[in-house]
Amino acid sequence: MQETIKESPLFWPAHFEKNFLMVLDETLIPKKLHYIKVKNAQEAVAVIRDMKTRAFGQLLVVLSTFLLEIKNRESKIQFNDLQEIAQALNNSRPTFPFAEVTGMVLGFAQKGLAQNIPIDVYLPKCIGGYLEGIRYRRLERVQKIAAIIKDGDSILTHCNVSGELAMAAAICQAQGKGIHFFATETRPYFQGAKLTTWELERMGAKVTLVADNAIGSLMADGLVNKVIVGSDRSCANGDFANKIGTYQIAVLAKEFDIPFYVLTQPSNKIAKGEDIPIEIRDSKELLEFGGKKIVSGNVDGFYPGFDVVPHELITEAIAIDVR
Amino acid sequence: MQETIKESPLFWPAHFEKNFLMVLDETLIPKKLHYIKVKNAQEAVAVIRDMKTRAFGQLLVVLSTFLLEIKNRESKIQFNDLQEIAQALNNSRPTFPFAEVTGMVLGFAQKGLAQNIPIDVYLPKCIGGYLEGIRYRRLERVQKIAAIIKDGDSILTHCNVSGELAMAAAICQAQGKGIHFFATETRPYFQGAKLTTWELERMGAKVTLVADNAIGSLMADGLVNKVIVGSDRSCANGDFANKIGTYQIAVLAKEFDIPFYVLTQPSNKIAKGEDIPIEIRDSKELLEFGGKKIVSGNVDGFYPGFDVVPHELITEAIAIDVR
Repeated sequence: MQETIKESPLFWPAHFEKNFLMVLDETLIPKKLHYIKVKNAQEAVAVIRDMKTRAFGQLLVVLSTFLLEIKNRESKIQFNDLQEIAQALNNSRPTFPFAEVTGMVLGFAQKGLAQNIPIDVYLPKCIGGYLEGIRYRRLERVQKIAAIIKDGDSILTHCNVSGELAMAAAICQAQGKGIHFFATETRPYFQGAKLTTWELERMGAKVTLVADNAIGSLMADGLVNKVIVGSDRSCANGDFANKIGTYQIAVLAKEFDIPFYVLTQPSNKIAKGEDIPIEIRDSKELLEFGGKKIVSGNVDGFYPGFDVVPHELITEAIAIDVR
Repeated sequence: MQETIKESPLFWPAHFEKNFLMVLDETLIPKKLHYIKVKNAQEAVAVIRDMKTRAFGQLLVVLSTFLLEIKNRESKIQFNDLQEIAQALNNSRPTFPFAEVTGMVLGFAQKGLAQNIPIDVYLPKCIGGYLEGIRYRRLERVQKIAAIIKDGDSILTHCNVSGELAMAAAICQAQGKGIHFFATETRPYFQGAKLTTWELERMGAKVTLVADNAIGSLMADGLVNKVIVGSDRSCANGDFANKIGTYQIAVLAKEFDIPFYVLTQPSNKIAKGEDIPIEIRDSKELLEFGGKKIVSGNVDGFYPGFDVVPHELITEAIAIDVR
């Protein structure tokens, strides 16, 4: 039996309200906790592409989008409709394994159809059950993370681990462990500055923000003794992709013999890290801040959204199977 | 004989205009090229502390402040006045070797007084001559940097190298070398985004801005083949301090066998890197952007302004003796 764990809004950042999918707008945190009303697949693609939701939120939105469109079409949905929805979602962003998730949904539907069960009956049951399973396993993982964290730990994290790390922190606090977090800013989107510090603080954890370029210095000064990060995509050989900057943290952790933990969702669809497609995002996201240009003239930027950490740099992958 | 090199405003960011010291406000670049009118030592300390000027600009402002105060006191300056000015400048920021520079000035004055030459006669001559020497050697160093840069190089730099790198880039362009720069943003002050991209572009060089957390990824993808950075303070054993983030770049460069060059001003006043005092700046500079808070609630930040690179990580120190 799982203990009751106080949930972070980032742990489960989308839910249905009547016939709409309400998606947490992570770009507005910490200013407000606002949910975007998503009415159809097209709008779902937009919230993903504009990074209103990210990481686990993408899985949740993708699966929920099929449920949304089943409702929208008043149960008259056909298999080719599902294929179209899958296609649109697969094309939203390159690095997250959208095709794996939508492929699973199409597989569910086919299996139902083979048994003459209509899509609108079979699919909601499958997706609902699948999400319940994921939820259960993620809550289990929160406990695992809490068990890895020891009294006196000073933990570095990067980007945002979608609720799980903050919830593990809350468990540790309840257990009386004295722990401290360093959150990187995570330029250019500031997910660390905006999301991670906010949710760790909400959960009662002590957190200090540092610039992405302070990590080597922190480690050299002995201020960090564990690294815990999430991942956006995993490979058969254990390599994984995560928010840009994760790779250099892993190299530095190795240099200082600091244990490096990653939360993964294993997959065998991709053999190794170098095969993961890396999203190159619009350089505008780097060159502007708050709508104002930081740099001068014609200077261009290069903004790979992710990087790849080879499995050799991982101390332990805390995996849950979401297939 | 030195070739004429097109100068970057950041190469010599302060000059006298009548009785005032005009100091380039580097925080306004790239928006405008504005010089702050500095009227006395107190205002000089302020432009240093507020990082309106930085790196080489600090040396220039410190030396010029003595000249300014000699003018202000209509040549009635006493040795204890110099000591007071030195004290105020020494306390402005901790990492740059202010005491070494002001100590040298006091030494000049003492030497003059020992020969019965008044401070207001001897000191301007010494400081003026010293600055001419520094200027000459820095221009020589620009040529050295240009010679190190080869056709086809893709050079990563961090923070801002006060004109020298950009001027070397201009020489390389004139020599027909095809070269490219990656400039890090250099959070939280964005010196890379604001100063380095601006001056490299002005000098006709190709430059691409990247986030501080993209360095490992760039190197892993083979996009960088040289690193060139400046330094704020050097030690007897060759260790040096520079803008926070330099250390992790050096570790990554070593990991990828990428040559790592640093412009230094050698000193034997400090034995080794760990003895360098590291300035911890106000966390507000990390938590706010454009006057607006990025993070929520009571989250605090930690902003060491510099880090230390041990000499083992340096391929070559391109030194000029400024003592």
